[in-house]
Amino acid sequence: MSADHYNGTSAGVTRHYAPYVQADWGYANHWYPALFSTELADGTVKGVTIGGHDIALRRSAGKAYALSDRCIHRGVKLSAKPMCLSEGTVTCWYHGYTYSVDDGSLTTIVGNPDDSLIGRAAIRTYPVEEVNGMIFVFVGDADYGTPPPLESDLPMRVTNDPNNSPVAHLMDDNIIVRGIHRKLVGNWRLAAENGLDPGHLLVHWDNQILVALDRALPLGVNALTDDATEEIDIPNGPKGVMNRYDRPDLYQPVLENPKVDIKARGTVQHYFRTSLWVPGVLMVEHWPITDVVQYEFYVPIDDHHHEYWEVVATRAHTDEERAEFDFKFEHFFKPLALEGFNNSDVFAREATEEHYTRFDGWNNEMLCDMDYSIIAWRKMAARHLRGYFESPYRDED
Amino acid sequence: MSADHYNGTSAGVTRHYAPYVQADWGYANHWYPALFSTELADGTVKGVTIGGHDIALRRSAGKAYALSDRCIHRGVKLSAKPMCLSEGTVTCWYHGYTYSVDDGSLTTIVGNPDDSLIGRAAIRTYPVEEVNGMIFVFVGDADYGTPPPLESDLPMRVTNDPNNSPVAHLMDDNIIVRGIHRKLVGNWRLAAENGLDPGHLLVHWDNQILVALDRALPLGVNALTDDATEEIDIPNGPKGVMNRYDRPDLYQPVLENPKVDIKARGTVQHYFRTSLWVPGVLMVEHWPITDVVQYEFYVPIDDHHHEYWEVVATRAHTDEERAEFDFKFEHFFKPLALEGFNNSDVFAREATEEHYTRFDGWNNEMLCDMDYSIIAWRKMAARHLRGYFESPYRDED
Amino acid sequence: MSADHYNGTSAGVTRHYAPYVQADWGYANHWYPALFSTELADGTVKGVTIGGHDIALRRSAGKAYALSDRCIHRGVKLSAKPMCLSEGTVTCWYHGYTYSVDDGSLTTIVGNPDDSLIGRAAIRTYPVEEVNGMIFVFVGDADYGTPPPLESDLPMRVTNDPNNSPVAHLMDDNIIVRGIHRKLVGNWRLAAENGLDPGHLLVHWDNQILVALDRALPLGVNALTDDATEEIDIPNGPKGVMNRYDRPDLYQPVLENPKVDIKARGTVQHYFRTSLWVPGVLMVEHWPITDVVQYEFYVPIDDHHHEYWEVVATRAHTDEERAEFDFKFEHFFKPLALEGFNNSDVFAREATEEHYTRFDGWNNEMLCDMDYSIIAWRKMAARHLRGYFESPYRDED
Repeated sequence: MSADHYNGTSAGVTRHYAPYVQADWGYANHWYPALFSTELADGTVKGVTIGGHDIALRRSAGKAYALSDRCIHRGVKLSAKPMCLSEGTVTCWYHGYTYSVDDGSLTTIVGNPDDSLIGRAAIRTYPVEEVNGMIFVFVGDADYGTPPPLESDLPMRVTNDPNNSPVAHLMDDNIIVRGIHRKLVGNWRLAAENGLDPGHLLVHWDNQILVALDRALPLGVNALTDDATEEIDIPNGPKGVMNRYDRPDLYQPVLENPKVDIKARGTVQHYFRTSLWVPGVLMVEHWPITDVVQYEFYVPIDDHHHEYWEVVATRAHTDEERAEFDFKFEHFFKPLALEGFNNSDVFAREATEEHYTRFDGWNNEMLCDMDYSIIAWRKMAARHLRGYFESPYRDED
Repeated sequence: MSADHYNGTSAGVTRHYAPYVQADWGYANHWYPALFSTELADGTVKGVTIGGHDIALRRSAGKAYALSDRCIHRGVKLSAKPMCLSEGTVTCWYHGYTYSVDDGSLTTIVGNPDDSLIGRAAIRTYPVEEVNGMIFVFVGDADYGTPPPLESDLPMRVTNDPNNSPVAHLMDDNIIVRGIHRKLVGNWRLAAENGLDPGHLLVHWDNQILVALDRALPLGVNALTDDATEEIDIPNGPKGVMNRYDRPDLYQPVLENPKVDIKARGTVQHYFRTSLWVPGVLMVEHWPITDVVQYEFYVPIDDHHHEYWEVVATRAHTDEERAEFDFKFEHFFKPLALEGFNNSDVFAREATEEHYTRFDGWNNEMLCDMDYSIIAWRKMAARHLRGYFESPYRDED
Repeated sequence: MSADHYNGTSAGVTRHYAPYVQADWGYANHWYPALFSTELADGTVKGVTIGGHDIALRRSAGKAYALSDRCIHRGVKLSAKPMCLSEGTVTCWYHGYTYSVDDGSLTTIVGNPDDSLIGRAAIRTYPVEEVNGMIFVFVGDADYGTPPPLESDLPMRVTNDPNNSPVAHLMDDNIIVRGIHRKLVGNWRLAAENGLDPGHLLVHWDNQILVALDRALPLGVNALTDDATEEIDIPNGPKGVMNRYDRPDLYQPVLENPKVDIKARGTVQHYFRTSLWVPGVLMVEHWPITDVVQYEFYVPIDDHHHEYWEVVATRAHTDEERAEFDFKFEHFFKPLALEGFNNSDVFAREATEEHYTRFDGWNNEMLCDMDYSIIAWRKMAARHLRGYFESPYRDED
């Protein structure tokens, strides 16, 4: 028998955002977070993989650099056994090929200082920006040219009701940023869509943070008009879609569903707003609590794994304010929100992967009215493609 | 060099039962056991996979139902996080798609009771029969029509010498059924053939149950004529092959083999009889002891795994008889027979898989005279094919 | 984007040793070590895999035999559950197919001594040589004919400066051989090349054995002329390449590299010499200490794994000398050299595999002057090919 029980109705729809559906490995030529600053001590090397690119991060004299993590000699990872013999260089632990962190040039070979290859070969380097405790790397085509500013790959700057105060932007002065990141099973797009998704509140209905704070959580939020999801396209700047939860005229919460005898829980109203930005960055304003913002990055590792980044930020001008945020991060935000609350999302994303991988989910899904903002995101993302990551594997068994 | 050391002589023979050789994923359009009744409590959902079909079992108001275990929305398994909000429905834990267990129709979406998709979409359902503590599901083509009766997919009813008493049939009244099931590596056909196989006694020669009961175990049993294996084809009923061990005129036991200086062990004669039935059900009459019958199901999960079911049954009219059987099951049949004895078969089946998978075993085997009943089974099974299970995977890496 | 960051310059070079690059599964029609004699007790069966050949070793009446480890019947491994019922035979544990160890013929079937297949079928056998505690098997084409002598697949006999004494050869009388072997990730060629490699001293710079003995370890050794690597081609005998470290006129040690501010460590000079022989056998004369020789075999298992053999040998004429060597092996050579020192090589080899497997490393490497002897080895090996091992898998998913 044929597997006709997996037919969805979406096959014809995907043409509206075909470039997005093809981006299994992610969007090339963008800035992605690679490490927290605290993870890269001076004098060491750490390896990450972004969109199939194996990248070695090296801090030298305080500054962070990024190079290909594959020695040109025989392809071992430089980060497999970090060897930093002098400032400004990374040495391969196997045969001593030594590269300049500035331009990747082969400056010496430890055991053969007069080797004829020296000065005639180089490893690839990547642009790096380090800001507010996060190290970003621009990953993509070697011949891409000057990368656009980091800010164009972060959510836009917003001033948010109801406080009418500016939300902490990751490049602001006088803010504090804390967070975690982890490797998950699942394509980066499934993670990004889950982040924006207005229809998945059910997976959070029993989360401890909501129960403890008695937060009102509707069963769903109904968009009343097409304006509920705003498409934002800033020239030379961020591109994203925003659920305008700040506009009560655009949404109606669903508080009960008699058909299955279920009602919304909680009594304390809490305002927040979500938006998703190319190449896969979520902003949740006023979350986990008012005046804090949560950013999430869904960084493609390969076509079936992503690095899930969760950071929270707020304004902080004094040491006391920073210490208070640190304390709340360790004992409230991290255990109850980044882990407790978002682990429900992690479960959902990993559970979705199999269908999209093995059953061609992009052409076998059956979206509903609640998916309006996900469709808007797909179309927006499809229009703003700088390039694809592709599988780097040439000869795999 | 080529791998010529794996050449068997069977390549030309397989044409006699070609449909059977093609049935890697199993026989579609048959009844298969899915769960024991005790494994499915009221108000919950359990997932199983049969022939590539992911199936969710749900008990509601005492009755067992079977639906596709893939939400039509984004393909997650309903059973991954069971959510039963009302009688007669299963709700997907991710976005609240809620299905009727009767016909699979989408009856509501928790967070959006007015969604336009409601009433216009459905999930697939499967016919279910529950009898004597076992839940059977009819799995196959969605358009197959009315399934044949469950009884046609079970071994036939027999009255067996030497007692001339009817053997407990799984659909009888006044019987008791106990058993276990487990997922094994190995194609379902290798398991089924091992069950019937008259030539594999050697793997059992040191089993504790035989040593403890001093049972006589010959080295082999020689069929004297072609009638030793009977082909049974009941119109609109079971199809199978039976080793007529009840006919001493047809078999001669082998008690010694001087070439390797080995003799049969044990002194207590014990009568039993084996038969194998489409779509892969073994009956061993008078096993593990006289007046008990052991049934085995080799339920295909995918092309390399099967669910191995072992159940024992006997007639029981009183609570005392049932209690006695329960006690014997826990302290004798299960540890010494279903596990102790049959674990030798499990070892053999799993050891056989690699050759059939990697070395095209169906065309590279060298059968001998002892394999007459396996050949008979293959031909019988090839003639009674209602359909194939096929790989449901569309886009696997 | 394309994965252009993995481009090496070697693509055009590989034509000089193309047959070697094609030998993913190893060189067929050679002698390979299969087991230490102590690993094969009389009356048992052990299984090994060499170049994709599953081979069962059986000792009967003191003599070692090798047969295919796949029963012709249904392909299970004989070694999965050893069954030796009589001298000179191996019996399959599943259905009792019994083979003569001499010629592999099917001499009986335990449960059916009169089966018509008996005498008309056979399993493949392999030539075996057992010498000084090691069991070698000749593995390759079934129709290869008489194998060349074992000695042609071992390193040549040498008399070595500075002692001008003959180095212990594995086929000599009055020597003692001890060692270990283990399965590693990585193609056999990457392991062999690492063994010979004059450029990888850096991975050993902090090894405990060197630090404890204060051995002088240069950063590298520069070949001054092309004669530094000698190609040795003995008619009807061993073929190999030798780093002529015994010739101070050919090499210059590198003791410092100011560019990265590193100097060689250690003060005690120690003489040794390395050579690599077809089909992948390393000889390190005077290692780990003077008058001991270390041999290493990189035996292909499949295209991504090899069995790593390390043996040390020396001359020993008395029981006292043998006992002293045994004691040193257990408490010095094995922990500090075969494990401690060579574990750095194991790490390096396993780290190299990914690049050669997934990124077509043979055409994407960038060799340097220090790789002269590896290039010489590849060319030598390419000229002396008796055949390829090939993948035995026919029908893999």
